[in-house]
Amino acid sequence: MIKLAVDAMGMDKGSKAAVEGILDFLNTYKDVELTVFGKKEELSELEGKCTIVDCKEVMDMEDGALAILRKKETSMIKAVDFAKNSDVDGVVSGGSTGAFLTAATVYLKLIEGVERAALVSPFPTKDGGNVIILDIGANSENTPEHLVGFAKMGRTFAKAYNNLETPRVYLLSNGAEEKKGSELVKETHKLLKDSNFEGFKGNIEGRYVMYGDADVVVCGGFDGNVLLKTAEGTAKVMSDMLKEGFKKNIFTKIGYLFSRSGVKILKERMNYKKYGGAMLVGVNKVVVKAHGSSDGYSFFNALRVCYELASKDMVNKLKEEMK
Amino acid sequence: MIKLAVDAMGMDKGSKAAVEGILDFLNTYKDVELTVFGKKEELSELEGKCTIVDCKEVMDMEDGALAILRKKETSMIKAVDFAKNSDVDGVVSGGSTGAFLTAATVYLKLIEGVERAALVSPFPTKDGGNVIILDIGANSENTPEHLVGFAKMGRTFAKAYNNLETPRVYLLSNGAEEKKGSELVKETHKLLKDSNFEGFKGNIEGRYVMYGDADVVVCGGFDGNVLLKTAEGTAKVMSDMLKEGFKKNIFTKIGYLFSRSGVKILKERMNYKKYGGAMLVGVNKVVVKAHGSSDGYSFFNALRVCYELASKDMVNKLKEEMK
Repeated sequence: MIKLAVDAMGMDKGSKAAVEGILDFLNTYKDVELTVFGKKEELSELEGKCTIVDCKEVMDMEDGALAILRKKETSMIKAVDFAKNSDVDGVVSGGSTGAFLTAATVYLKLIEGVERAALVSPFPTKDGGNVIILDIGANSENTPEHLVGFAKMGRTFAKAYNNLETPRVYLLSNGAEEKKGSELVKETHKLLKDSNFEGFKGNIEGRYVMYGDADVVVCGGFDGNVLLKTAEGTAKVMSDMLKEGFKKNIFTKIGYLFSRSGVKILKERMNYKKYGGAMLVGVNKVVVKAHGSSDGYSFFNALRVCYELASKDMVNKLKEEMK
Repeated sequence: MIKLAVDAMGMDKGSKAAVEGILDFLNTYKDVELTVFGKKEELSELEGKCTIVDCKEVMDMEDGALAILRKKETSMIKAVDFAKNSDVDGVVSGGSTGAFLTAATVYLKLIEGVERAALVSPFPTKDGGNVIILDIGANSENTPEHLVGFAKMGRTFAKAYNNLETPRVYLLSNGAEEKKGSELVKETHKLLKDSNFEGFKGNIEGRYVMYGDADVVVCGGFDGNVLLKTAEGTAKVMSDMLKEGFKKNIFTKIGYLFSRSGVKILKERMNYKKYGGAMLVGVNKVVVKAHGSSDGYSFFNALRVCYELASKDMVNKLKEEMK
């Protein structure tokens, strides 16, 4: 039985996406127990299907880290606090990233040996697989020691999540050569190399991250965020252009009808919603941050990922690795 | 009359791409005078069309910054030295980036008031226009003062290159809010804001860089390089997937025939070759680094961009701005 705490509020589409996602999730997985936090009147469809904890307050999207001190009655903080004080395996929220990550770190505490928690997301690759990238934004400044920690956590994550024996771990840089990179990257490279870090393959450029050669890409939170958002932006711009291209005239419209099964491959591989969000690794429970813009399908996937990581006993594996 | 010095050697495809590009260029532009540096026996097609300076040595792709001290007889260093000691307006090379940028900075010297030169590339946007991004890799560590310099140079570049009155200048960050970002970004934001920097619009996420709202995006060289290469990599992966999709079966192949004029829009807008390379701004001549993987079309465009920047009197405009 996997038990999860869920904050159903605070997303762009209100609680609607959460309710849809939760209903789907409960239909799909039977060995689960959900405790859902939010405004009771908005969660009536869930009644009798999970435990509902009525919360009057909601964390705003604009709330930052400090809000966790003032807004203890919000569904987000209540869910995180419940995760701390109960035996649930994980917690999911689609609300303010800053507030949720801070609350998760403060309430659930870092795993022993972890200096900084990191946000992780599997990222689609050309070959239909995925690459684990971290940190994609939990931190805005990092030290080489933080990055070595991310490398360890990323490797553990890739082993468990993608069933890999020895994940190939790369360091994001502006060139493949050892001497290339910022001071942070060069110093981290040295630490990983000198310690004979298992699976460490050297530097990788942003260009090759999605080619499928890397299982794990390690970077500071600022750079990871630039990487993630640039890839998302480029994918969005290209697919918009393609859509526009297909609408150009009657021939291209006919063309689309014939070719759409092929175009579908592209869409499916590039579909970020299938991961539902990002995971905060390094704290004492499974923590999944659903996209603020989630629809029901995306929120379902955030729950699914949380469930899978809990089933794979990710937290204990990280504890073992970071000892 | 625009005069350019051209290093025809050191690219992946040898001198072939350069010769093709130069011939095209000379056919297209009549008010130009080229001095081409390279192995005479490989440049016979150019005889009588431009001045050829025979050079026995070639800078290797793997040569770094320090090679400029040892390899003074290479076509690259000869071309840069010629640019220093003659009245040519600019210099183009597709050889080793590290060696060329260092040589250009050392020989041609920084413009007064410039602390660091920056690599610039116009980047295609969704609306068919372009955005000027800098630095995309001349530096691997930067200070807030460097970034303020990049903002000034980027604004001058966008005004001249894209004929804009008041370019909208953004700072690359991990969130749009003022308080978001690395220490470097936060400090730069403060400097730009406090000085009422003309056209400064705040932070921008990687996601929105290609949407067409920004005319200039300012970032440190490491982050700019991650941005550029991630966008290139994503575009490449998506277009490969699309190609694969169209080949799926007879229907998708027919579909492609009908829709290709639409797909062509996508290809044209995303075609990086049309800029031919990146420009080093902040030194006393127009400097264009052609792609190491250039074909003739790409090298032609590097020459074209160098010609345009020289015609627009870019160096004097930068001198004026940086005073």
